[in-house]
Amino acid sequence: MAKVNENYLKLRGSYLFSTIAKKVSEYQNSHPEEAKEIIRLGIGDVTKPLTPAVLKALHSAVDEMGNSETFRGYAPDLGYDFLRKAIADEYKERGCDIDPGEIFVSDGAKSDTGNIQEIFSEDSIVAICDPVYPVYADSNVMAGRSGSFDEKNDRWDRIVYMPCTRENGFSPELPEKVPDIIYLCSPNNPTGTALNKAELKKWVDFALEHNSVILFDAAYEAYITEDGIPRSIYEIEGAKKCAVEFRSFSKNAGFTGVRLGFTVVPQDLEISGVKLNPLWARRHGTKYNGAPYIQQRAGEAVFSPEGKKETKALVDFYLGNARIIYDGLKAAGYEVYGGVNSPYIWLRTPNDMTSWDFFEKLLNEYRIVGTPGSGFGPSGEHYFRLTAFGTRENAEKAVERLKKG
Amino acid sequence: MAKVNENYLKLRGSYLFSTIAKKVSEYQNSHPEEAKEIIRLGIGDVTKPLTPAVLKALHSAVDEMGNSETFRGYAPDLGYDFLRKAIADEYKERGCDIDPGEIFVSDGAKSDTGNIQEIFSEDSIVAICDPVYPVYADSNVMAGRSGSFDEKNDRWDRIVYMPCTRENGFSPELPEKVPDIIYLCSPNNPTGTALNKAELKKWVDFALEHNSVILFDAAYEAYITEDGIPRSIYEIEGAKKCAVEFRSFSKNAGFTGVRLGFTVVPQDLEISGVKLNPLWARRHGTKYNGAPYIQQRAGEAVFSPEGKKETKALVDFYLGNARIIYDGLKAAGYEVYGGVNSPYIWLRTPNDMTSWDFFEKLLNEYRIVGTPGSGFGPSGEHYFRLTAFGTRENAEKAVERLKKG
Repeated sequence: MAKVNENYLKLRGSYLFSTIAKKVSEYQNSHPEEAKEIIRLGIGDVTKPLTPAVLKALHSAVDEMGNSETFRGYAPDLGYDFLRKAIADEYKERGCDIDPGEIFVSDGAKSDTGNIQEIFSEDSIVAICDPVYPVYADSNVMAGRSGSFDEKNDRWDRIVYMPCTRENGFSPELPEKVPDIIYLCSPNNPTGTALNKAELKKWVDFALEHNSVILFDAAYEAYITEDGIPRSIYEIEGAKKCAVEFRSFSKNAGFTGVRLGFTVVPQDLEISGVKLNPLWARRHGTKYNGAPYIQQRAGEAVFSPEGKKETKALVDFYLGNARIIYDGLKAAGYEVYGGVNSPYIWLRTPNDMTSWDFFEKLLNEYRIVGTPGSGFGPSGEHYFRLTAFGTRENAEKAVERLKKG
Repeated sequence: MAKVNENYLKLRGSYLFSTIAKKVSEYQNSHPEEAKEIIRLGIGDVTKPLTPAVLKALHSAVDEMGNSETFRGYAPDLGYDFLRKAIADEYKERGCDIDPGEIFVSDGAKSDTGNIQEIFSEDSIVAICDPVYPVYADSNVMAGRSGSFDEKNDRWDRIVYMPCTRENGFSPELPEKVPDIIYLCSPNNPTGTALNKAELKKWVDFALEHNSVILFDAAYEAYITEDGIPRSIYEIEGAKKCAVEFRSFSKNAGFTGVRLGFTVVPQDLEISGVKLNPLWARRHGTKYNGAPYIQQRAGEAVFSPEGKKETKALVDFYLGNARIIYDGLKAAGYEVYGGVNSPYIWLRTPNDMTSWDFFEKLLNEYRIVGTPGSGFGPSGEHYFRLTAFGTRENAEKAVERLKKG
């Protein structure tokens, strides 16, 4: 008799965005006129179209697929050499020595950050920042590493939570219990805070000392504007012996609907004498059939001179929105974080309101939709996330409304 | 201290195609002149370009992605409604009542057949056809369901093997030990044999009686030409209560490099009161970010009137190759199977040669590359696979050489 994976049944309803959608829809029904004015700053999805260099590469690759001389069937499991090389070259420009053979092209960082736990032992102790992108915890719940959910504590009892709050500058502290696997996300989603060189070095040293592995999610690296903030963990000495890095084309080049990302697993990364690079290659080769050729050509175009210019313009545009929202909130008297090295603005709710109460207030009084911080983890309570991925007009309008109070 | 998933270390070197590549390369070095004549009938990858309807849809979707009015960010995790509806309509034409909500769009059947085991209990007993596509066994080895590899038997000791040989007409028999999960592939890769209605009914009845789940890989369904051979397991009464079906756009519309597939998990499919549809939805939603918009529009085009006509022409072309190879082998005195409802021709090696000895003979004497049957499972020994996915000219040339003896 077949049985299901019981770990799946433990999962908490991850209804954050569907609860938000439901509440917005209720508001629309009860306030049809006001609802027309709603500004959505909730979901982390880009809104600007693909850039000319990317479009040209996509059309040209589609043409190649229509010609028997240039048609491409199965891609190499780990990615075409042209793209792996382009990525390695970009790392080189940043002073990181990454070989194309250490780069695994995929359909995006969500798949990779969700799947990477598979190559580790089932009894691994996992540490996550709190609050953070929910995929790290959920994928480990599904794999049986989370233990039970402690309702009173609002936490999984076998996961190590590393609070990131205003008290520690949203920079996680080294945990007392040594984890086997440490998820770091910098710039962090949702707090919008990036780890500086000294902070990252602290983690690399810790991982090297304890033979832990750092899973470093750098999906938002393109938004780093300040000096002294590494865009790759490999800017830290020793990281190639302890860290995997995830990258994405979603938030820089606007590929959320195109789907392309990659993961770096260095050849030097060994645990108990087992190299992780061939292990991840085996995972890719067995359960994945390579990213599409046309997407890989689009990814290559992002690294071309025009592509780089266009991508920077996209990022600058969203950062401009972030600046407007950040400054506007400040001027309106809010306690605000993030927004400088990140497309996310993270604010403390006024008067210690709960995140959900603030959500209601923002929707009802200002017709603005955002994301309650508590949806990203228990330490996100009393915080709130706004995103800079909308239009300039909406960013400005939202700020005007908030300033009026 | 981090530890790896020990199950990965149990995996057998899946070097089938790399061993083949190595042997071909050695031949090229030692016989540079003869090697120019090599005909490759080894890998199951298509060679014909994408069709006009698909190309038009791809270009048009790329254009939409370049315009802020029509740009699409994140796709719905489970697929766009337009594609899920087109798929449901196609099922309806075949007399199968599948709701769009039962269809999960993905990047291909390899990912889905590799990942599906996750939603089942770790101690599940898994049954596979022998020989068969290696992903079913390997993904279960990685998840710890295989037990140990028995070198003497050339089998995993916790996996139930269902031999498919000339003795049983390549139709697996019901196993004595009742499995929890049964992988069926029809038309089968590599044997090229499809299960008829009565055979499939036997399996559905067995699964219903024992509360087993059938994982039905229908990636080659488009190649079925004979009457009485179901193209979907849902043509069998009761299958919606016991079977998941995998489909692909790779082998019909030539999407091996485009990447698109889908999986059907019926709402009626429950085990111990747990519905599998929301479980698979949770897996999709947590570890996958949806198939790309442009690919989903290409998939939709495959179901358009022009798309259907063009896809049929592609399949007919490859089936024409299959017929030439099949007939040619027969005429040359070989014992041949498959090729009628499948792009694969499965032959018995002459004089009980091992599959690898025959590989060497074919390469050295005829300059033809094929795939040793033993690479697909122990019962594939003394068999050999040729594919019909090459050019017409090569199919004809290969046959001429084999006939000359």
